[in-house]
Amino acid sequence: MPQVKVCLSPLLYEAYKLENSLVVVIDIFRATSTFCVAFSEGVKTIHTFAKAADALAYKNKENFVTAGERNGERLDDFELSNSPFDFINNEAIKGKDLAFTTTNGTQAIALAQGSGGIVIGSYLNMSTLISWLAVQQKNVVFLCAGWKNTINIEDSLFAGDAAHLLLKDPRFTSDCDGCFIAQKMAKEARKDRLGYIYQMSPRVASRKVLEKDFQYCLQEDVLEVLPVLEGECLVNLYE
Amino acid sequence: MPQVKVCLSPLLYEAYKLENSLVVVIDIFRATSTFCVAFSEGVKTIHTFAKAADALAYKNKENFVTAGERNGERLDDFELSNSPFDFINNEAIKGKDLAFTTTNGTQAIALAQGSGGIVIGSYLNMSTLISWLAVQQKNVVFLCAGWKNTINIEDSLFAGDAAHLLLKDPRFTSDCDGCFIAQKMAKEARKDRLGYIYQMSPRVASRKVLEKDFQYCLQEDVLEVLPVLEGECLVNLYE
Repeated sequence: MPQVKVCLSPLLYEAYKLENSLVVVIDIFRATSTFCVAFSEGVKTIHTFAKAADALAYKNKENFVTAGERNGERLDDFELSNSPFDFINNEAIKGKDLAFTTTNGTQAIALAQGSGGIVIGSYLNMSTLISWLAVQQKNVVFLCAGWKNTINIEDSLFAGDAAHLLLKDPRFTSDCDGCFIAQKMAKEARKDRLGYIYQMSPRVASRKVLEKDFQYCLQEDVLEVLPVLEGECLVNLYE
Repeated sequence: MPQVKVCLSPLLYEAYKLENSLVVVIDIFRATSTFCVAFSEGVKTIHTFAKAADALAYKNKENFVTAGERNGERLDDFELSNSPFDFINNEAIKGKDLAFTTTNGTQAIALAQGSGGIVIGSYLNMSTLISWLAVQQKNVVFLCAGWKNTINIEDSLFAGDAAHLLLKDPRFTSDCDGCFIAQKMAKEARKDRLGYIYQMSPRVASRKVLEKDFQYCLQEDVLEVLPVLEGECLVNLYE
């Protein structure tokens, strides 16, 4: 019977990884949410880079557009930040390849190399993701990118909501405390997610200048995309 | 202003450690609870070992008694397990030195070497611990031993309860999502801790044969002891 695990930080992955599992990489504010937006707006591929310089090297390559942030801030010399609003209705990205660097999300993707598959999760594509996972019938690890390797509340909440949905399918099971903890929090937060996040995280609450982005990223099921890692880059399975 | 952090697994310690902090090692079921019981029953020192063989080497040394478990089971050849009931009213341990090996607790202690001090936390000595921490006015990291490097619910709950008590002292502060997550769970669990733990953890629920131990370890403030690491071994600061 396929297992479901919730891994609340990249540092924990060694203890949570499962043989031949599908790994769902989660970075709600904002990388994985923005990946979903980018694909829904017609981006062809997303290449992720841990180092900003490696992404920037693609700036003048044919068909490439660069996007990136460090510590939540737009990076100099990049054409786009990691805000979803840089991608929505942006004609300049249609059919393009993105070179994307981001503090936490890229590292989580790198870590999950060697698993049975890497897919991108966000509230924006939650139902599409869960339906697809249910069909695969493989072990699933929800891997939270976290914040500089610490646990963050927004990724934990999504992991809890997603695990809860997947476990409604009686063909999946879990014996993972992290999974139950995340589900419990997610249930409690459901009435007012952003309020709950502000209450639990001085880190997020201190960045209310991004509230419009936060609200956008917490919308459920507004996009029918499923970014998956194929070779070196992310592509949209539901193109 | 001293910071309070909650580190939910030893694997996360690198991301949570603070300069010159006091590290509270937590392994509620059952190592750190039983350390407290052992000191309250008159044990002189506790030497902890990651490897069972290293503890067993002390079996016939003068004044030593061996205690240990692996995966929650008593180890062959050891005189005592890590059940508190092996220590309560046990005349054979008074004034003795313990050589103690345990799956998770020992490793967490080893990890915190090099910090500003290592103390042992459990519900049994919670108030004694918190009062002492408040006087020290240093950074505090609550370090959960977890279960084979994964997050476990019982250690997370204690970390949340303890952090909540310490943060009532307005001279302490926290900006750690893990600390808020743990406090939230702890609050929810307070009415029926063991029921909550069973609900959240199939791992614990499958070991109801140990329920008497679990109930014992969840009692608050029944012991006035404070085990601290001094050189190579734990001693009781409140002897």
